Amino acid sequence: VSAPVRIGVLGVGRIGRLHARLIAGGDVEGLKLSALYDVDGDAARVVGDALGTQIMSSAEELMGSPRTDALAICTSTDTHVDLLVTAAEIGKPVFLEKPVSLDLAEVDRGLAAAEGAGLFLQIGFNRRFDPAHASVRDATAAGEIGELHLVRITSRDAAPPSLAYIRVSGGIFLDMTVHDFDMARFVTGAEVDEVFALGDVRVDPEIGRAGDLDTAVVTLRHADRVLTVIDNSRRAAYGYDQRVEAFGSAGMAASHNPLAHTGAVTTESGTRAQALPHVFVERYVPSYIAQWAAFERAVREGTRPPVTAQDGRAALVLGLAARRSVQEGRPVRTAEIG
Amino acid sequence: VSAPVRIGVLGVGRIGRLHARLIAGGDVEGLKLSALYDVDGDAARVVGDALGTQIMSSAEELMGSPRTDALAICTSTDTHVDLLVTAAEIGKPVFLEKPVSLDLAEVDRGLAAAEGAGLFLQIGFNRRFDPAHASVRDATAAGEIGELHLVRITSRDAAPPSLAYIRVSGGIFLDMTVHDFDMARFVTGAEVDEVFALGDVRVDPEIGRAGDLDTAVVTLRHADRVLTVIDNSRRAAYGYDQRVEAFGSAGMAASHNPLAHTGAVTTESGTRAQALPHVFVERYVPSYIAQWAAFERAVREGTRPPVTAQDGRAALVLGLAARRSVQEGRPVRTAEIG
Amino acid sequence: VSAPVRIGVLGVGRIGRLHARLIAGGDVEGLKLSALYDVDGDAARVVGDALGTQIMSSAEELMGSPRTDALAICTSTDTHVDLLVTAAEIGKPVFLEKPVSLDLAEVDRGLAAAEGAGLFLQIGFNRRFDPAHASVRDATAAGEIGELHLVRITSRDAAPPSLAYIRVSGGIFLDMTVHDFDMARFVTGAEVDEVFALGDVRVDPEIGRAGDLDTAVVTLRHADRVLTVIDNSRRAAYGYDQRVEAFGSAGMAASHNPLAHTGAVTTESGTRAQALPHVFVERYVPSYIAQWAAFERAVREGTRPPVTAQDGRAALVLGLAARRSVQEGRPVRTAEIG
Amino acid sequence: VSAPVRIGVLGVGRIGRLHARLIAGGDVEGLKLSALYDVDGDAARVVGDALGTQIMSSAEELMGSPRTDALAICTSTDTHVDLLVTAAEIGKPVFLEKPVSLDLAEVDRGLAAAEGAGLFLQIGFNRRFDPAHASVRDATAAGEIGELHLVRITSRDAAPPSLAYIRVSGGIFLDMTVHDFDMARFVTGAEVDEVFALGDVRVDPEIGRAGDLDTAVVTLRHADRVLTVIDNSRRAAYGYDQRVEAFGSAGMAASHNPLAHTGAVTTESGTRAQALPHVFVERYVPSYIAQWAAFERAVREGTRPPVTAQDGRAALVLGLAARRSVQEGRPVRTAEIG
Repeated sequence: VSAPVRIGVLGVGRIGRLHARLIAGGDVEGLKLSALYDVDGDAARVVGDALGTQIMSSAEELMGSPRTDALAICTSTDTHVDLLVTAAEIGKPVFLEKPVSLDLAEVDRGLAAAEGAGLFLQIGFNRRFDPAHASVRDATAAGEIGELHLVRITSRDAAPPSLAYIRVSGGIFLDMTVHDFDMARFVTGAEVDEVFALGDVRVDPEIGRAGDLDTAVVTLRHADRVLTVIDNSRRAAYGYDQRVEAFGSAGMAASHNPLAHTGAVTTESGTRAQALPHVFVERYVPSYIAQWAAFERAVREGTRPPVTAQDGRAALVLGLAARRSVQEGRPVRTAEIG
Repeated sequence: VSAPVRIGVLGVGRIGRLHARLIAGGDVEGLKLSALYDVDGDAARVVGDALGTQIMSSAEELMGSPRTDALAICTSTDTHVDLLVTAAEIGKPVFLEKPVSLDLAEVDRGLAAAEGAGLFLQIGFNRRFDPAHASVRDATAAGEIGELHLVRITSRDAAPPSLAYIRVSGGIFLDMTVHDFDMARFVTGAEVDEVFALGDVRVDPEIGRAGDLDTAVVTLRHADRVLTVIDNSRRAAYGYDQRVEAFGSAGMAASHNPLAHTGAVTTESGTRAQALPHVFVERYVPSYIAQWAAFERAVREGTRPPVTAQDGRAALVLGLAARRSVQEGRPVRTAEIG
Repeated sequence: VSAPVRIGVLGVGRIGRLHARLIAGGDVEGLKLSALYDVDGDAARVVGDALGTQIMSSAEELMGSPRTDALAICTSTDTHVDLLVTAAEIGKPVFLEKPVSLDLAEVDRGLAAAEGAGLFLQIGFNRRFDPAHASVRDATAAGEIGELHLVRITSRDAAPPSLAYIRVSGGIFLDMTVHDFDMARFVTGAEVDEVFALGDVRVDPEIGRAGDLDTAVVTLRHADRVLTVIDNSRRAAYGYDQRVEAFGSAGMAASHNPLAHTGAVTTESGTRAQALPHVFVERYVPSYIAQWAAFERAVREGTRPPVTAQDGRAALVLGLAARRSVQEGRPVRTAEIG
Repeated sequence: VSAPVRIGVLGVGRIGRLHARLIAGGDVEGLKLSALYDVDGDAARVVGDALGTQIMSSAEELMGSPRTDALAICTSTDTHVDLLVTAAEIGKPVFLEKPVSLDLAEVDRGLAAAEGAGLFLQIGFNRRFDPAHASVRDATAAGEIGELHLVRITSRDAAPPSLAYIRVSGGIFLDMTVHDFDMARFVTGAEVDEVFALGDVRVDPEIGRAGDLDTAVVTLRHADRVLTVIDNSRRAAYGYDQRVEAFGSAGMAASHNPLAHTGAVTTESGTRAQALPHVFVERYVPSYIAQWAAFERAVREGTRPPVTAQDGRAALVLGLAARRSVQEGRPVRTAEIG
C-alpha cells in the first residue's frame, strides 16, 4: 500500500466540517486529514481539537504546506475563484464545493486558471455518488430501460435555509435546483437546450421579501430530446425528499427515499411508517464517503475527475436560465446565457 | 327499496360494452340494464345475447323507450353532441363518455341544450372514482396536507392506440392528457390559468407521421397558484402507469400503482416484484363501478352530477391550450382558448 | 367453441351464493349457471330471482336434471358426504366445498364412493388459485429459490365467526388452519410427518367457553424435511391478513397482503397507508374465479382435478393432529391419526 | 460538559475492533477510547496504530489503568467469566459481549461476582438498540397494538460462520438464536415457560458433521401466554434477513429489512429492487452506536444497565432448552434447565 493522500481542508462551516470528520474518521481508505484553516480562527480550533488536526494560520500556509497533498475548498462561495487560482498556481489537486461561483465570468476565470495549469479539479456534486441515484444513472447508461425519454426529479428540503443565506445564495435555482440540474445532466448524459421554469413563494413570505422563490417546477429539453421535469420546495413537512426517475422505451429506473427506519405499525386505521430523515447528511453520508473515495482513486490513478469544472459551469448556466425564464415568463435557451 | 334505474346503453364499443356488463352483472346496486343500441347491429346482437338484453333498432327508439329511465352515451365522439341534444329534448338523465366533443363550439352547443333543458348530465371521467386517486383528493380537501403547493401526475399507457384512432382522437392532449387535466382540476379544486407543454415523438415515428405526439410534459399554473406537472407516454413497457401526488405545506398525499399481484421473489440478485397490469380496465374497474354508483345516487336523490359538463369543457380547453403551447413554443393562457 | 358446462349449485349460503353469482355473471368463460337448490326455499328464491336462475325443489331433482352438467356442493358440512355419494351414483363432475367432513371415517366413505365411481371431484381450496400465493408455489416448483427449507404462513381473520358456527365447525384447526395446512402441502408439494401446535384463547373468552381456541401457532415437519410454521388469529384489527413465504437455498418467494387501495398520506408523523380489506371475498375473488376456470378446463379436457379429495383428507388429518397436539402438549405424528 | 468516559477494550477480534472504531471515531458523544489489549499482540498493534490508541501488555494492566474508566470485554467466550470476576474486583463499569458463557454454572459464578460487587454490567444484545426493532418494542409497550398475542421473528444469516467457530460456539441455539431469544423477551417483556424446537441440517452437511444444525424453527410459550415463533437459517442467499413482528388485539408492529439502497428498475418483467446487505454490521451499525450511547448514559447517570446480566442468563437458558427440545423431540420447560 502506498502512502495516504493528505488533505488540507479550507473552511470548516457545516460542509467543511463534515468533510474533515469523514476524512479523519477513517471512512475513506487512502485519505488522511492533514490540516485545517478557517477565517474564523475559533471555529477552526474547535474542529481541530476534536479531530486532533493541525490548524493553519492562513489559506496560503495550508495550501503551500509540504504536509498537504491535496486541497478541499469549502469556504464561502465568494472566495472560491481566488482560492482556485492560487491552488492552480501551487498545482495541488483540488476538491471544490459547489457552486464554483454565482457569476459566470468568475467561473470562467477560475476554469481558465485551472485548465491552464492542468489542475485536477473535482466539483462537489455529491448526489452523483448516492448509491440509489447512481443506480438510476447506471441502469440508464447500461441500456436497461432502453432509449431514455423522460426524467423526473423531486427535490424538496426539509426546512428552508436562513434568510441570511438566501440573500447571498443566488436564489433557489442557484443554491438548490443546481443539484437537480446536475442530476439531470448526470442521468441523461446530455446537455440542455431549453429551460422553462415556474416559481412562487408559498412556504414563507419572508423568502419572497428576500427576493427569492421557495416553490418551483422546471422543465428541461435536452440536446438528445429527453425531457426532464424537476419540482422543488424549500420545505417538506415530512422530511428531506429526494427522488429521481428515468423513463425509457424499455422501462424505468428510480431512486426512492430511505426512511428513518423500517419499523411500521398497522392498526384499524392502516399502516403507519416512518417519515424521512430531516437532515441532508443523514441521507447523503454514504454519497459523501463515495465522493471522497472517487477523488482518492482519480488522484492516485491520474485519471480525469469524476465531476469536472465544466459540470459546475453547466449547472450554473441552467440556474441562470431558469431565473430568466421565471422573470420573463417564457422558455429560455441555454445558448442565450453563455 | 325503490325500483332500479333502468339504463339504456348507446354504443357497445370497448367502453360501452364494459358499462353494459358492469350494469348487467349486478355490480351496482339500484341499476339495471334495459336495452342496447349500436350502429353496428351485429356488434349489438353479440353483446345483447351475452347479457340477455334487448337490442333497439335506433338510437331514438332506445332513448324514447318507456322501459329506459336513463341513458349511457358511449358512441363515437363525433355523434355525442347530436345525441346529447336529443337526450335533452327527451329529458332523461345522461351519462356521457368523455370527450363531449373535440370542437369547443360543438361542446358549447351541447352544453347549452343540456342546460336549457335542465338535463342531468354526468361526464365519464372515471379516474375521479378510483379509490386511490380519490384518497389524494380527499386528503387534500380535508386539509391533511395543509395548503396545496404542487401536484405531480404521471400517466403512461401500456401501449399506443391504433393509428386509426390517433388520426381522429384529436391528439395526445385531447385523448390522453385530458384525463390528467381533469385530475389536476379535481385534486386542486381550481381552474387553470396557464399551460406550458413540451412534446415529442419517441415511441413510434408512425405516430408522428399521423400528426401526433407520444411523449409529453405539461405544466399548469392554477388560479390559486398551485403548480401541476404532468408527464405522459403512450407506451410504458412495464404496464399501465398512473400516479398522482399532491404536495402541500403539511405533507403529501399520493396514489401508487397496484401490481398485478403481491407475490415477489428474492434472490441474490434482489427482489423481483410484479409488473403493472397492462389493460386499463384491470386497474380501473373499481372506478367504473363507483362512477355508476355515484350516478345512481345522484339521479335518485336529485342532486348535481358528480362530474359536470363544465368539467368536460374545461379539460378540453386545457388540451387545446397544450396543443397550441407545443405549436408556438410558449406558455398559453387558457383565456386565449375560450 | 363448444357448449358451456351448466352448473347446478346446491346450497346458497354465503359461499354458495358467491359461486352462483360468479358463474352467472360471466366471469368464467365456458360455465353457465343452470339451477339452484337450498333447503331454505326462501333463500333459494331470493338468489334465483336476482340471478334469473331456476330453483329446484330438491337436491335430487337438481342433481338429476338433464339441464345440469356438473354440481357445486356448497351445503352445510354435515350433508356433504351423503350428497357426494348420490353425486357419485349420478356420475356428474362435482365441485365440493371444504371440508369434506369433520369425521375422517365419513371422509373415507365419501372418497370410496367417488373413487369407486371414477367421479371427477374437486375440493374448494380456493387459496391455491390466488395469483400471489400461486406465484410462491410456482417459484418454488420452478426451483427459483433452490431447495426448499422453510415455509412461513400467517393467516389471521379480520373477525371471528359466530359462536354458533364455532360450535359446529370442528374448531380453529378444522375450520381455519385447514386452509393453511392445505397451503403448506401445496407450496411444499410434500406430506407432513409431524405436527406440534400451541393454542390459546386471547381474542374472546366466549370462544373458549364454546370449547375452541382463537390464537395458535403450528409447526409441521414435512416428509421431505421442510419445516412449516403457521400462525393464526381469529381477529386481526387491521383486516384479513394472509401471507405465505417459502425460503430455500437460493432465496425466498412470498405473497403479501394487497391493500384496500394504494393511496397514502405522508406528514410529519410518517406515512399512513391503507389497512387491509376486512372481508375475505374482497381478497379472494380472483382466486374463486381462477378456481372455476381450472374446474372448467379439467372437466372439459378430462384431466385430473387440480385439487383432489385426497387433498381434502390430508388437510383434515393435519387438523386432527393439531387438535391432539394441543390436548396432549406434545408433537403428534400424522401416522397416529390415520 | 463533563469529562468523557474513557473505555478500554479487551479483545480486538471482529466485534472488539468494531467497538473500538466506533468509540474512537467520535460516533458516541461522551465516550473516548483509552486503551486496547488483545492476547494476539500483533492484532492489537494493527488496530491501535490505525486508531492512535495505546496498547496494553496484559488484560490486568488495561483493567487497572488509571486512564481507563470502563471496560469493554470482547475476548473469546471462554475468557469472559474470569475477566468479569477480575473486573468485579476492580469495580469499573463493564460492557460484556454476549454470550456471558456457554455454561450456566459459569454464568452464575460471573453473575454472583458482579452482583456481590454491585458492578455495573451491560450485556451486548445490540439488536435491542436497532431503531426498527426498538420501534416494535416501543409500540408494544405503549399499547399501540393492544394486548400482545403473538411474536414472529425471522433471523437468517447471509452466510454460515466458519466450522472452527461452529465447533466452539455452542451450536445454533447458543450462537445465533440466542439473539432472537433475547428479542422475544425484549418485545414481550415476559419470561418464557416452554420451548419447542425443530432443527435440521439443510445448508451444509459439514455443519451437521460438526454436531450442529443450520435450519431451525422454535416456538416459545411465555409466562404471560404470548406465543413466539422464531425461524432461523445459517444462510439466506439474498443477504442478512432480520425481521420482528408483534401481533396484538389492536394491530401489529413490525420491523422490515433495510435494503442496500432504494434504487429499483422496472421493466416488462417486473420491478427489481436491491437485495439485503450481507454483512451484519452494515445493518446494525446504528444499533451498536445506540448501544454505546445507552451505556454512556447509564454509567453517567448511575442508572441500571439497559441490558442486564439476567438478560444474558435467560437467553442462555432458552438456548439450552431449545437444544434439549431437539434432542428429545418434545417441548421443554425452562424450569427443567435452571
